[in-house]
Amino acid sequence: MVLEKIKTPDDIKHLSKNEIEILSNELRSFIIEKISKNGGHLASSLGVVELTIALYLSLDLSKDKIIWDVGHQSYAHKILSGRKDLFDDIRRYGGISGFPKRDESKYDAFNTGHSSTSISAGLGLAHARDLLSEKYTVVSVIGDGAMTGGLAFEALNNASSLNSNFIIILNDNNMSIGKNTGGLSYALSGFRASYSYLNAKKVTKSILNKIPLIGGGLVSLIVAIKNAVKQLFANEGMLFENLNIVYLGPINGHDIYEIKKMIERAKKIDRPVLIHVKTIKGKGYKFAEENPEKFHGVNPFNIEDGSPVVKQTKETYTKVFSEKLCQLAEKDKRIVAITAAMADGTGLNLFSKKFPDRFFDVGIAEEHATTFAAGLAVGGLIPVVAIYSSFLQRAYDQIIHDVALQNLHVVFAIDRAGLVGADGDTHQGNFDISYLSTIPNMTILAPKNKYELEDMLEFAINYNGPIAIRYPRGVCFDEYKDKEAKIELGKSELLVKGSGVAIFAIGSQISTASHVIEKIEKEYNKKFTLVNARFAKPIDYNMIDELCKDHDVIVTMEENVQNGGIGDKIAYYMQEKHSGKKCIKVSLPDNYVEHGDVSVLRKVLMIDSDSIIETFKKYKLV
Amino acid sequence: MVLEKIKTPDDIKHLSKNEIEILSNELRSFIIEKISKNGGHLASSLGVVELTIALYLSLDLSKDKIIWDVGHQSYAHKILSGRKDLFDDIRRYGGISGFPKRDESKYDAFNTGHSSTSISAGLGLAHARDLLSEKYTVVSVIGDGAMTGGLAFEALNNASSLNSNFIIILNDNNMSIGKNTGGLSYALSGFRASYSYLNAKKVTKSILNKIPLIGGGLVSLIVAIKNAVKQLFANEGMLFENLNIVYLGPINGHDIYEIKKMIERAKKIDRPVLIHVKTIKGKGYKFAEENPEKFHGVNPFNIEDGSPVVKQTKETYTKVFSEKLCQLAEKDKRIVAITAAMADGTGLNLFSKKFPDRFFDVGIAEEHATTFAAGLAVGGLIPVVAIYSSFLQRAYDQIIHDVALQNLHVVFAIDRAGLVGADGDTHQGNFDISYLSTIPNMTILAPKNKYELEDMLEFAINYNGPIAIRYPRGVCFDEYKDKEAKIELGKSELLVKGSGVAIFAIGSQISTASHVIEKIEKEYNKKFTLVNARFAKPIDYNMIDELCKDHDVIVTMEENVQNGGIGDKIAYYMQEKHSGKKCIKVSLPDNYVEHGDVSVLRKVLMIDSDSIIETFKKYKLV
Repeated sequence: MVLEKIKTPDDIKHLSKNEIEILSNELRSFIIEKISKNGGHLASSLGVVELTIALYLSLDLSKDKIIWDVGHQSYAHKILSGRKDLFDDIRRYGGISGFPKRDESKYDAFNTGHSSTSISAGLGLAHARDLLSEKYTVVSVIGDGAMTGGLAFEALNNASSLNSNFIIILNDNNMSIGKNTGGLSYALSGFRASYSYLNAKKVTKSILNKIPLIGGGLVSLIVAIKNAVKQLFANEGMLFENLNIVYLGPINGHDIYEIKKMIERAKKIDRPVLIHVKTIKGKGYKFAEENPEKFHGVNPFNIEDGSPVVKQTKETYTKVFSEKLCQLAEKDKRIVAITAAMADGTGLNLFSKKFPDRFFDVGIAEEHATTFAAGLAVGGLIPVVAIYSSFLQRAYDQIIHDVALQNLHVVFAIDRAGLVGADGDTHQGNFDISYLSTIPNMTILAPKNKYELEDMLEFAINYNGPIAIRYPRGVCFDEYKDKEAKIELGKSELLVKGSGVAIFAIGSQISTASHVIEKIEKEYNKKFTLVNARFAKPIDYNMIDELCKDHDVIVTMEENVQNGGIGDKIAYYMQEKHSGKKCIKVSLPDNYVEHGDVSVLRKVLMIDSDSIIETFKKYKLV
Repeated sequence: MVLEKIKTPDDIKHLSKNEIEILSNELRSFIIEKISKNGGHLASSLGVVELTIALYLSLDLSKDKIIWDVGHQSYAHKILSGRKDLFDDIRRYGGISGFPKRDESKYDAFNTGHSSTSISAGLGLAHARDLLSEKYTVVSVIGDGAMTGGLAFEALNNASSLNSNFIIILNDNNMSIGKNTGGLSYALSGFRASYSYLNAKKVTKSILNKIPLIGGGLVSLIVAIKNAVKQLFANEGMLFENLNIVYLGPINGHDIYEIKKMIERAKKIDRPVLIHVKTIKGKGYKFAEENPEKFHGVNPFNIEDGSPVVKQTKETYTKVFSEKLCQLAEKDKRIVAITAAMADGTGLNLFSKKFPDRFFDVGIAEEHATTFAAGLAVGGLIPVVAIYSSFLQRAYDQIIHDVALQNLHVVFAIDRAGLVGADGDTHQGNFDISYLSTIPNMTILAPKNKYELEDMLEFAINYNGPIAIRYPRGVCFDEYKDKEAKIELGKSELLVKGSGVAIFAIGSQISTASHVIEKIEKEYNKKFTLVNARFAKPIDYNMIDELCKDHDVIVTMEENVQNGGIGDKIAYYMQEKHSGKKCIKVSLPDNYVEHGDVSVLRKVLMIDSDSIIETFKKYKLV
C-alpha cells in the first residue's frame, strides 16, 4: 500500500505519478471503509481527495496553512497529516474529531465546524503573516454552499485590504448539504439568463452596426466578436473580479496536476486569488455520487449497497415535527417553512414536497432566514424557521432586532438542542435556552416526549408572538403518553406527586428525571415529585410557589449551559420568595463539550441518572 | 410654505413641478433646523430628500411598502407621512423615534435600526404578498455601506427565489458612516483595476489578432470594439446581474424625475430589480457635505457654522479607550485594531492615523470582524475589536465558535454598553453581560471610572484568552480616583466598608451606587458597603463569601437585562452557600427600552439612585 508510506505531510512529495494515482484510490477506499463503520461526513470528504493531494504537493505544511471551511471535508487531510491510525476512533469520545482541531494537530491551522468562516480566518492569518514579516502561504478551502453565508461575503469584500498573496479555493460541487439554489449558484453555473444575455446581444448588435460592410473577412470577424462577447459574459469569475479578487478557473477538481499547476500559479500573485475548482460530491463511491445528500453525514452503512447497518425504526423528533407541521399546514395556508440549507436534517423536505410554494431554502444563511421570516410575518404569514440550535446562534441579533422587537409571530423550530454527540463542540446545542431567555417577548418551550412536541407546535402556530420550541437530536422519548394536559402559556405540568424533593425538569431531561425518581423510589424508598417545566420562558413561578409549600428542595434540570438557564432564575425567585428552601441546578458545565456518544457524554458531564443520584447523595437528599 | 400642505402621503401628488422643487428645499431646511436643536442623523437624511419625494410620487403608500435600511435616513419620509408636527420631540422620551416604527405610523412598513436588514425583510414581504394574492409594491432602500453586511448579501443571493416584482434602491454615497472601503465599494466605483482590465485587453487583442488586415474602416471598428469591451467591464451592475438581479442605473439621486421614471420602469419588471442611485451624503448643507462623518449622528449644532451648541469638554470613555490603546500599541507591535465601519464612534480613528498598517475597517460586518480577529490572533497578533454593544450581538456565534472555542486572545472593546439614550430600543446595549456570560472561556470586565478603563485595557492586552471590556456611551465617571487596586482576574474591589447591606455593582452602576450609599448615610444614617465587581465573569465569589460574614443582604447592580446577568448567578450561589441571606438584583427589565435621555430612562426604569432607595424601603433595608 502506498498509503502506508505516508507518515508526515511531506512524504507524498516523494511518490511517483503512478503512486499518486494509487494513493488517491487508497485514500478513497480507506475513507469509505472507516466511515462505513463509524459514520461521518462521507460525500464531502470523497469530493476533495484530489484537491487535498494537490494541496499537499504544492504546499510546505511545516509552515503553510490550510483552513478547511466547515471542516467536514478534512478526512483526507487528517490521513495525510499523520492521523491515519487514529481513524478507528474518529468522532468517538476520546478519539480524533471529525473536524479540524488545532489541539489535535499542528497541521490543523484553524478550528472549523460552522460554515463560511474560512475566508475571514485566512485573511486574518495572511495579514498577521505580513505584519510579523513571516513567509508562508495561506489557503482557505470553501464550498459553494458555504459561499452563500454572509460571513464569507463580508470576508470577500474585505479581502481587497490585502496587498499580498492569499489563496481561496472555491470547491464548487453545486451542493451545500442539499442542492444549492440562489443567485450565487446561478452566477457559478456559467449560464447567463435573459437579462444579461439581452444586454450582450445589444452590445454585439451595436458593434455590428458600426462595421462598414466590406465583405470578405467579415464572417470570421463577426464570429470572433460574438465569441469575445460571449466569453465575457460566460466568465464565471466576474462576480469575484467585481469584488477585486483575482479569479482563476474553473478547473477540474479531480485532476491533481491541473490543480497543482493552478495553485503554483496562484502563489505568485501578490493579491487575494480565488481558484474555482469543480468537483463531484461523493466522487468515487457510486451510492454517494448518486445520493450526496444522504451520504453527507451518514450513519454506519454496508459498503456493497450503501444501506444502513442499523435501520432506524424508532421515530425521531425531526420526523414528528416534520409530519405535524405538514398536518397543520394543510389546514392553515398562512403557514410557510424556512430552512437554511437543511431541508433534510430539519425534516422540512416533506413540507417542501407537499407545499413547494410555501417552502424557502435560503442557503446557509441563518441571519437572512430570520429577518426574511420577520418580513413574511409582517406580510401576514406564519413562518416556521427550522434551524439547528448551534446554527441559530448566528441569528441572535436578528431574533432580538427584527423578530422580537416587533413582537412578530415567528415560530423557531430548534432541532439538535442539547447534546448532539459525534459532531462535537462546534455543534452541541447547549446555549439556546440561555441566549433566547435574554430576549424580551420571547417564549421558549421544550417537549417532554413526541406527543408534546406535536401539541407545542400546534400551540406555537396559534400563539401570537416570537416563540421557539427546542427539541433534541435523535429518537423520541415516548413515555408519559397519558400525561397530556393542554399547553397553556407559562404553565408547567405535574407528572409525579411526591414530597421533600421536587425535580423541575425541561425537555430531554424529563426522561432522565423519570429514571432518577424511579431509581430513588426503588433503591431508597423515597418518592420525589417530578414536574415537566414545558416553558423555559416564561417560567411557571406559580408552580414553584406550590412546590415550596411541601418541598424543601427543588432540583432544576436542563440540557443547557449553567449560565443563564432556568436554574439561576428559579434560584433567584426562591431565595426572594421562599427563603430557606434550596434550589439545586443540574445543567451542562460552562465548558465546550467534545464529541462522543451522547450516552457517554452524559456520564462524563454527570447529567445521567446515576450521576444525578450521586449528586443528590452529596446534598443528603437520599 | 408648500410643506404645510402635506398632511398625508398622497398630498405631494397634487403639487406642481415648481412646488415640488420648493418642497425639497423646505424639507431640507426643516430637517436642518429640527436636528440642529435635537440632534440626530442629519447627513443621511439630507442625502435622500429627492429620493424620498420620488418614492412618494411613484408609490401608493396606502398599500405600497418602503423599508428604510438602518432607518436613520427616514426623516423626510416621516415628515411627508404626517409626522412633521412631532419633530420637536424626535428622539426624546415620549416623542417620535429617529427610526421607522410600525407602532408609530402605518407608513413605517418594518422597524429598522441595525444595518443590512431591508432586503431580507422586503423579500419576505414580497413573498407574503404573492402567497396571499395581494397587490402592492415593496421597495427596500439600502445604502452602499449597509450593502457590505453579510445579511444583505444573503438576501440578494436568495432574491432569485422571487418570480415577481421587488425593488431594491441602492443609495450609493460611497459612505457607510465613514468612507467605504472594500471590494464592493470597488465594484460600485465603476473603476476596473489591473487584473480585469488586463483580461479585457487580452480579449481585445485576441479579437484584433483575428481581424484580417483590410484597412479602411478598421480604425473605427477597433474603437467600437474597445468601447464595447470597456463598457462590459465598466458596467457597475455586473455584480448584481451575476446574482440574477436586474440592474438599472446608475442615476443621479438628486434628480427627482429621473428617479421617478426609473421606479416606474422597475415596477413593470416581474423580478427583483436593483436601482442604483448616486447621492451625496449631507446634500444641501455645506458643513455636512464637507464632513459627512461628523454630521452622520450629530448633537445640537449652530446652523450658521455647524459648530456644536455645547462643546464637549469632559472626557468620554471612547476617548480614554482610544488614547490608552494607542499608548499600549506604541509599546507592543502585535496590537492591531479592528472596527466595523465605526472608526469615529469607537475612537479608533486616532489609532488608524497612528498605525495605519495595523488598523482594519472591515465594513459593516461584525461577524467578519470577529472571525477575522480570530485569524489575526492565531497568526500571532493581539487584535482589539471595538464594536458597540448592540452591534456585537451580530457576532454572538463567531465569538462562541471562532474565538472562545479556540480560547484565542481577542480583546473586545464594547462601547455603548447599557443605555444609549436617543437612538432607542434598537441601539441600547442592554444584553452583552448576559450573552457573553453564556460563553465558555470568556472574561468580561466593566470599569467603574476612566482610570479603571485604562487599567482594564492594559490587563486585557496582557491577558491570554477571549476578553471583553464593556463601557458606557458618553462622559466618564471620574470619582474614586484613589481606589486603584491592581486588576486581578476575577477579583472585585472594596470601595466603601459598611455593614448590614452590601452593594455589589458593576461598571456604570458604581456611580449610581455611590450616590445611593451617600444619600442613605445622610438621610438614614446607615452605612452600606460598596463593592466594585469589576468582573461580570468570572464573578468574585470569594468576595460574596466575605460579605456574607457580616452582611444580611447583597444588592447586585448592573446596567444589563435581568435575565442572565450577574444577579441571578450571585443569587444561586448565595442560596447554595449562604442560605438565609438575601440577594436583591437591580437591573434592566426584560423589555426593550425606548429612546430618551439616559437620565430620564434611568428614572423610568427605576435604576436611578432615588428609585433604588425606594426599592430598598420596600425591602425594609432603610
